[in-house]
Amino acid sequence: MQPDLLPCHRAASVLQNLRLSSPLVHCMTNDVVQNFTANVLLALGAAPAMVIEPEEAAQFSPLADSLLINVGTLTADRSRAMLVAIHAANASSTPWVFDPVAVGGLAFRTQFARDILALCPAAVRGNASEILALAGETAGGRGVDSTADALSALPAAQHLAQLTGAIVAVTGEIDYVTDGNNAWAIAGGGALMTRVVGTGCALSAVVAACCSLPGSRLDNVASACRFMKLAGEQAIAVSRGPGSFSPAFLDALYLMNGEALA
Amino acid sequence: MQPDLLPCHRAASVLQNLRLSSPLVHCMTNDVVQNFTANVLLALGAAPAMVIEPEEAAQFSPLADSLLINVGTLTADRSRAMLVAIHAANASSTPWVFDPVAVGGLAFRTQFARDILALCPAAVRGNASEILALAGETAGGRGVDSTADALSALPAAQHLAQLTGAIVAVTGEIDYVTDGNNAWAIAGGGALMTRVVGTGCALSAVVAACCSLPGSRLDNVASACRFMKLAGEQAIAVSRGPGSFSPAFLDALYLMNGEALA
Amino acid sequence: MQPDLLPCHRAASVLQNLRLSSPLVHCMTNDVVQNFTANVLLALGAAPAMVIEPEEAAQFSPLADSLLINVGTLTADRSRAMLVAIHAANASSTPWVFDPVAVGGLAFRTQFARDILALCPAAVRGNASEILALAGETAGGRGVDSTADALSALPAAQHLAQLTGAIVAVTGEIDYVTDGNNAWAIAGGGALMTRVVGTGCALSAVVAACCSLPGSRLDNVASACRFMKLAGEQAIAVSRGPGSFSPAFLDALYLMNGEALA
Repeated sequence: MQPDLLPCHRAASVLQNLRLSSPLVHCMTNDVVQNFTANVLLALGAAPAMVIEPEEAAQFSPLADSLLINVGTLTADRSRAMLVAIHAANASSTPWVFDPVAVGGLAFRTQFARDILALCPAAVRGNASEILALAGETAGGRGVDSTADALSALPAAQHLAQLTGAIVAVTGEIDYVTDGNNAWAIAGGGALMTRVVGTGCALSAVVAACCSLPGSRLDNVASACRFMKLAGEQAIAVSRGPGSFSPAFLDALYLMNGEALA
Repeated sequence: MQPDLLPCHRAASVLQNLRLSSPLVHCMTNDVVQNFTANVLLALGAAPAMVIEPEEAAQFSPLADSLLINVGTLTADRSRAMLVAIHAANASSTPWVFDPVAVGGLAFRTQFARDILALCPAAVRGNASEILALAGETAGGRGVDSTADALSALPAAQHLAQLTGAIVAVTGEIDYVTDGNNAWAIAGGGALMTRVVGTGCALSAVVAACCSLPGSRLDNVASACRFMKLAGEQAIAVSRGPGSFSPAFLDALYLMNGEALA
Repeated sequence: MQPDLLPCHRAASVLQNLRLSSPLVHCMTNDVVQNFTANVLLALGAAPAMVIEPEEAAQFSPLADSLLINVGTLTADRSRAMLVAIHAANASSTPWVFDPVAVGGLAFRTQFARDILALCPAAVRGNASEILALAGETAGGRGVDSTADALSALPAAQHLAQLTGAIVAVTGEIDYVTDGNNAWAIAGGGALMTRVVGTGCALSAVVAACCSLPGSRLDNVASACRFMKLAGEQAIAVSRGPGSFSPAFLDALYLMNGEALA
C-alpha cells in the first residue's frame, strides 16, 4: 500500500514554525558532512552547533533544542561522547534524532546502533538498507548506498516505529515517514542528489530541527523530508551537475516559502 | 564613543604585504570549517597547513609564519596538542591568534581559554558574547551566535587588550579592533554572512596571516577584518542566497586589490 | 628526457571502465579535504566511504574496491587505524594508494611513511618534494607546497617505483606517472588549481578508484591524473577565481566523456 503524499499546507505550516523558532541543533555527526550540514541548517533558518567533548556535549545537549547523532565516522571515543549527550538530552527532554549511516554492514556501529535505539530517539532517518538492518532484517547495503528501495522497507520502518516510539523516515527516490500507524509519502528530488555527499546526513539534521517544533511530530519529520526534496528539485532544474547543484540547493532552502511548497 | 573607520590606504598596504610574503598559517581549528578556512587563506594569497599531532604541531609552529588556535570543536586531546603548539610558537616568536568560539557558555573550553590567554596571544578575534566572557563579564551567548552587539563589547575588548597585550577584534555588524588604547571600526559585509558557517572562523585565520606581516599590528588585524567585510559585501551583491554567496566570496578575496579597497 | 603524453584513447577507455564498475573507495584521508574528496569521487562516478575506527576499517577494506591512505592530518590514533586497514587490504588483495602529504618536512609522518612504504602500495601520488623525500633525497617542501618541479623528481619517482613495485605519480604543472621503466606525461590544469585546497588529495582518491580497474595499472593511474587535469582546465576556462572554480570542476568531472578527453 502506497501512503498518501504529505499535504502542502502541513509542510508550509512547519516551515513557518521553523523560521519563527530558529531551533539550535546540537550536531554530533560525521567528519565528511559537518560543513554542509551546518550550511543546510543555516540556509533553512535553524542554528547548528557541533560540540563533541564528552563533558561539553553533556552540558550542551540540554541547552540545545534538539540533538543529532550520526555514526558515519564513528570512533570508540566519539561513541562515548554520544552516549553521554543522549543521556543528558533525555534527562532534559531534548529530542534526539538518529542517523544510522551504514549500519548493518559494519559490526562496531551496528552494535552501537542497537544499544542507543533503546534510548528513545524522537526520530530515526535512514535509507532502506539501514532501516531494514535496524529492524533486524537483512539487506544488501554497500557503504552508504542502499540496494533496496524505500517502499520495500516501509513495513520494517513501521515495525521499528512501534518498537521504539520514534518517527521513522526511510528515504530514497520517494521518502516514507511513519509513526508505526500512519505514514506519509514525500516525492521530489532527483538522482543528482545521490551524487552530492551529505544530502541524506543533512536531511537528518533538518529532521532534528523539526523534532523541536510544536504540533504533530509525524508531520514535522515528513515536512523536513519535503523541504529537502523540493530544494533538490529546484536546484536540479538549474544545475549542470553536482558542483552547481550545491550552491543552488542552499539558495533554494534559504528562499523557500509557503508558495514554493504549494 | 565610536572609533574612526580604518582608512582604505592602510588596508591596501597590508594586502600588498600579504600578497608579497604569502604567509604560511598553521591552523589548529574546528572540524566544521577546516576546508573553508583553507580556501579563504588560499584565495587571499596565504598558505594554510593543518597539523594536529602534538609532536608534529610542536615541530611545525616554529616553521610557520603564524599559528591559529580555534576551540570550536575542542577535545581534551586537541587541547593538549594546542598547548604544545602555542609553547613552541612562543619559543620561536611565531605570533599566535586565538578564536574563543562559544567560550563563556561551555565550561571545559572556558577554562582552557582562560589558561591560554596567559600565553601571550598576538591577537584575539571573537563576537561580543565571547569577548565579554573572556574579559570576565557575563553575556548571553547561544552557541556561536552573539546576543550582544560589538560596540557594547568594545570596553571589554580594550580591557582584554590591556591585560594580555593582544590586539582584540570584536566582530559583528560593525567590527572593532583595539590595542587597548586606539581602535578602528570596520564596516561592510551583511547579514547573509551569518547564514554561512565559518565566516568568523576564517576571519580569525586571516587575522593570523596578517599578524605575521611587518608594520602596525593594529592596522594589520583591522585590515584582515576589512578584507572579509569587503569580500562579503561584494559577494552579497551578486548572490541569491548563502549557496551562491560562498563561491562569490572566495572569488572576491582572490580578485581583491587596492582599487577595490579604495 | 620528457616522457610521451598519455594517449587520449587510453584515458577514454579507463573512464569507461570506471563508470561501468563504480568502484567503492575506502578513504582514510585528512580532515580538511574529506568533503571535497567524496564529492570528486561521486561526480566522476565512483563511490566514497570514510571508515576510520580500527575495527571497522579492518572489516571494511576487504569489502571496498580500493583503499586510500592520506597522512595530511595524521595522528597517532589514526596511524594505528591506517596500519590495520592496510594489512586487511593486503590480506584480501584490495589495492591501496598512498598520498604522502608533507612527508619530508615533519618527523612523525615521515617515519610512518617509511614504515608503510614497505607494505606494497599499488600507487603513490605526491608532489615533487614529497616524492623526493620518500625516495630518500632532500627537497625544499613548505607545508603541502612543493618547491621542486615534477620533472626533476621523475628519476626519484622511477627509483621509488622500482623499489616498492608501486606506480608512482609525481604531480605539478605537468604530471609524470611511472612504473619504474615506462612513464607518461599528463598536461592540462592550471595555476588556479593550487588555490583550491584538496585538488591533489582528491586526485589521490581518483588514483585509488582507478587502481581497482582492469588493464594496465600505469595507464589507469595516468588516466586518473588526466581526468583531473582536463576538468581543471575546463573549470578554469569558465571561472572568475577559486570560488567559482570548485562547482565548475565537479560539473566537469560529472559531464566528462570520451569526446571531451579526445
